Amino acid sequence: MKISELSRRSGVSIPTIKYYLRDGLLPQGQATAANQAEYGEEHLRRLRLIRTLVGVRRLSVSAVKEILGAITEEGDLHQIFGIVTDARPATKLKKQAKEEETAEGDTPGVADARRLITEMGWEVSPGTAAIQTLGDVLDALADVDAGIGWQSLLPYARLTDRMSELDVKQMNGASGLLELAERAVLVSVLLEPALLALRRLAQEDKSARLFSGTPE
Amino acid sequence: MKISELSRRSGVSIPTIKYYLRDGLLPQGQATAANQAEYGEEHLRRLRLIRTLVGVRRLSVSAVKEILGAITEEGDLHQIFGIVTDARPATKLKKQAKEEETAEGDTPGVADARRLITEMGWEVSPGTAAIQTLGDVLDALADVDAGIGWQSLLPYARLTDRMSELDVKQMNGASGLLELAERAVLVSVLLEPALLALRRLAQEDKSARLFSGTPE
Repeated sequence: MKISELSRRSGVSIPTIKYYLRDGLLPQGQATAANQAEYGEEHLRRLRLIRTLVGVRRLSVSAVKEILGAITEEGDLHQIFGIVTDARPATKLKKQAKEEETAEGDTPGVADARRLITEMGWEVSPGTAAIQTLGDVLDALADVDAGIGWQSLLPYARLTDRMSELDVKQMNGASGLLELAERAVLVSVLLEPALLALRRLAQEDKSARLFSGTPE
Repeated sequence: MKISELSRRSGVSIPTIKYYLRDGLLPQGQATAANQAEYGEEHLRRLRLIRTLVGVRRLSVSAVKEILGAITEEGDLHQIFGIVTDARPATKLKKQAKEEETAEGDTPGVADARRLITEMGWEVSPGTAAIQTLGDVLDALADVDAGIGWQSLLPYARLTDRMSELDVKQMNGASGLLELAERAVLVSVLLEPALLALRRLAQEDKSARLFSGTPE
């Protein structure tokens, strides 16, 4: 299809499509004339994905570029989720403190996060941003004397472990590495607010059942 | 303890404590003289909680106020998680579109979110923000032809259901309604980034095991 049809079907304006092409977010189409190119279904699919990541998850274009930059026809899928995970903006908790503490060594929370990862038997890169995020929460929990330590998070970790098995299942039926990688991005990034929303709904349900009419 | 000790032990400056007192975020202490008051461990605990919500989860003071405003000695716990859930800033997906569509009626995604809630047998208020959030994600998934509908989210919903049972367990051992409610806030709000981080780590693990060395 020509760029006009690509624009119409994807809902992305032609100038924006050209920006994505220039920026490498979208692969070039097949040149059919000096200033004309043919685009295929894979371009449409990629455009919709970009539009969703930018529009729905509010990721910056550079963040999307980082994520999609890892997906190429030549790339293998080694740590595809790892690439998406690291490129995806981690929750920015105590960013300044994080940078200071990383230079000096693990905070107690980060050290505990590593213990949890070891206990779960998870194979992850030691520099993964998510380890710092988890450590920040553990530090915060200790700070408020919550009585919730890394061991208390183990049951949650086991549930997220089963979730990640579901995530992998979602990738079945993808045809080709590119679609597989795009699906991985969808499942990992787009589902995050859905999972938090589901948990909130489940919490509201438990609260209504357990605490309704609690005597004061 | 006097306000100076409260400040020292909580790590919150005296002017900020006074601001929280004026704003009703922190309950008044026991007046011991014209311009003096005594504060107890519950004030310390509340202050640390506020500081964590503002500092770690980056919630605005008004958002924290909304959440904590629901927690009073006189209040019962009816839907304590529900109160926290609704007051907690839901992920702002397509805010403008959301306001338009709500006025016209449910989007297909929101209608599907309600189907999922019915299927799970969850007892939730129909206006809960999380329903809209879930609906937005479902609309986005349909938009990119992901092939992931509300039925595909059911296994995830069951896992979050078990998570919410863990959340309720965390509240055991709290002494008094106030501590119970504060713990509910901690568990629901503070753990969110931890759960996303855990899922990312689990995904990275699965990816490393499954795709390492995938032939190109």
